[in-house]
Amino acid sequence: MITVSEAKDLISENCVPERVENRLLSESQGYILAKPVYSPVDTPPFHQSAMDGYAFSYESWDGKSMLEVCGEIQAGSNVPIEVKSFEAARIFTGAALPDGADTVVMQEHVVKNKKTIRIENVQLTKGANVRLCGSQTKKGELALKKGQLLTAPAISFLAGIGIERVNLFSKPVISIIVTGKELKQPGSEITEGKVYESNSFGLSAGLHALDIAPASVEIVDDAEEDIIKAITRQSTSDILILTGGVSVGDYDLVLPALRKCGVENIFHKVKQKPGKPFYFGKLDQRLVFGLPGNPASVLTCFYEYIVPAISSFTKKQYFKKINMPLADDYKKKAGLTHFLKGKTNEGKVRILNNQASYLMNSFAIADCIIELEEEKEQFIKGEMVNVLMIV
Amino acid sequence: MITVSEAKDLISENCVPERVENRLLSESQGYILAKPVYSPVDTPPFHQSAMDGYAFSYESWDGKSMLEVCGEIQAGSNVPIEVKSFEAARIFTGAALPDGADTVVMQEHVVKNKKTIRIENVQLTKGANVRLCGSQTKKGELALKKGQLLTAPAISFLAGIGIERVNLFSKPVISIIVTGKELKQPGSEITEGKVYESNSFGLSAGLHALDIAPASVEIVDDAEEDIIKAITRQSTSDILILTGGVSVGDYDLVLPALRKCGVENIFHKVKQKPGKPFYFGKLDQRLVFGLPGNPASVLTCFYEYIVPAISSFTKKQYFKKINMPLADDYKKKAGLTHFLKGKTNEGKVRILNNQASYLMNSFAIADCIIELEEEKEQFIKGEMVNVLMIV
Repeated sequence: MITVSEAKDLISENCVPERVENRLLSESQGYILAKPVYSPVDTPPFHQSAMDGYAFSYESWDGKSMLEVCGEIQAGSNVPIEVKSFEAARIFTGAALPDGADTVVMQEHVVKNKKTIRIENVQLTKGANVRLCGSQTKKGELALKKGQLLTAPAISFLAGIGIERVNLFSKPVISIIVTGKELKQPGSEITEGKVYESNSFGLSAGLHALDIAPASVEIVDDAEEDIIKAITRQSTSDILILTGGVSVGDYDLVLPALRKCGVENIFHKVKQKPGKPFYFGKLDQRLVFGLPGNPASVLTCFYEYIVPAISSFTKKQYFKKINMPLADDYKKKAGLTHFLKGKTNEGKVRILNNQASYLMNSFAIADCIIELEEEKEQFIKGEMVNVLMIV
Repeated sequence: MITVSEAKDLISENCVPERVENRLLSESQGYILAKPVYSPVDTPPFHQSAMDGYAFSYESWDGKSMLEVCGEIQAGSNVPIEVKSFEAARIFTGAALPDGADTVVMQEHVVKNKKTIRIENVQLTKGANVRLCGSQTKKGELALKKGQLLTAPAISFLAGIGIERVNLFSKPVISIIVTGKELKQPGSEITEGKVYESNSFGLSAGLHALDIAPASVEIVDDAEEDIIKAITRQSTSDILILTGGVSVGDYDLVLPALRKCGVENIFHKVKQKPGKPFYFGKLDQRLVFGLPGNPASVLTCFYEYIVPAISSFTKKQYFKKINMPLADDYKKKAGLTHFLKGKTNEGKVRILNNQASYLMNSFAIADCIIELEEEKEQFIKGEMVNVLMIV
């Protein structure tokens, strides 16, 4: 049996080279840039007024004379106006400065008299209230680096320099196969021996929180041929997640099915609780995760192992890992890393009750998973522990 | 002109009562529960084996005799078996305990000999490896409280107790109207006087990050009748966001258009930079935000004012507000609250260059907005400031 960190390393080593896709900027929120973006234009694309006011030539003005209003330029208009000495053009925020003008006086600093204005702001300097052409970004200049997260402001910036499409690290295509003869859909009547199926709900929601929709979700019976058919149907996914049937019992048919499908076993069983029978394999370039059927094991393995594998595709960090002091003492046996459902509060993390892998009531209100080291048995209040935030 | 905190209070006071909707559990990730959930069933719904092994009656066993295997119970099967004294049923993880049995011995602790087994685990206690009926959740018990965020584990938990639909706080319906005669779509050729339209991209991406798709996005000309028509078309949205044209220039036609549409002015102009001409109004129960057209103003107002308004609908906290020391000294004039694009690193926050409201290159790489108080002028390295994280 391997350790948690060995398992994490093996998954990381087996992650495939990322894929790059070209997407519309309007559909790129939350992605990471896979290639740098260079500006195709100067921005602003012309000398632009930053104010509603009057544009004139600073140096051909004597600092006191009235200026004659020679025309008007609205933002977006393209009226050929030339401003001569002792002239000014009425101009609005965002409009292009007319030929001959280099300075804008705000309308609040002007006294207007029919077709002339008197400037009342003695503090005015040359170039005031003008955004120079290219003063944000020059044509050909690096606009954003590879690796940049596309937040709303980053997208607004790229739209503003005329970018329509971007090269991004692709999200992986993920399929979910839930196995179990005992599973009934929530909302239906439950009959003797059956339980409600919850793992497809938990995993789909976990992916949704990463802004990924699973390519397919199948619930299949504990029958080897059914599992093989499902694996075959989903074998083009980048990541295949199976739940249930990964122990070595008579009805644990996932591992034999994976073997028959040609999946290479990278590891099976990890020194951890919950989720000891966790399996990881590879089918060509596809990653195959076999999770134990208990819902707490499923989601613990999802957050601890599958989310980092997804990050290897998207280059995005989804959840923060932090160090935090424990709110209470805790004892465990040596030999397994324990992943415990926790709740942070005022800089401390509390280990919730009900940690057994079939109990989900504590996980439901948890905001983090606490990792307690394999060989350590005693944990003292105030001691720093590793915490993976999940919200 | 009102202050930032007055503006925030006015928006908060004018937020309407939240709406509750009944949604499929499978589409509830990231929502907040609007009503408590009570468990419709006991979970587990029967005494359940936690292991692959053999089920028997602990007290009718003498601690040493062989047990005769009287049948087999797979998870999900419903075979009527009764286990008598000195008998054991082969049982698998998740299966219902047969009548007469109360304890399970793991298969690893048994020596099998044809149709009998010998138990080799002397440590076995009564009820070992059995999950009692209702031991997670009892029928009628409170499963999750109103106000609970539906994470993947919370959804898995609810599915596991048979919940198919949940009552959630609705997301608001949001429409975006971008105004401006000067706007061209990214990817097109830019002509004299025109600039690329970026605010619809920034706002749509900002909403997408909150898992909200805008109900509509319209780009309209600086013409009062066009703006009025757009407002009328979108007047059933909970939140209407307009950008551009909210100053008092000759072509600032958004405020007159809103007035003609019957929108009640709650405030116009806030002592802040960027975004001074920020407008907020109400049309019946609908919230109307008029944002200045500069992209940095638009997104600053979005994060500072519109996101909290969205929270009043969804009851969800989207971005963290923290206190952090400044990485450098900073000077500003008194009179306006400054919202500056910042970047956090190793517990400090750095004020990025290029803070003018038309510059988006700094905002594009920012991870936070730093709020510097209205009346204060000097800020010293190491001094604690309010920081709104935006990633």
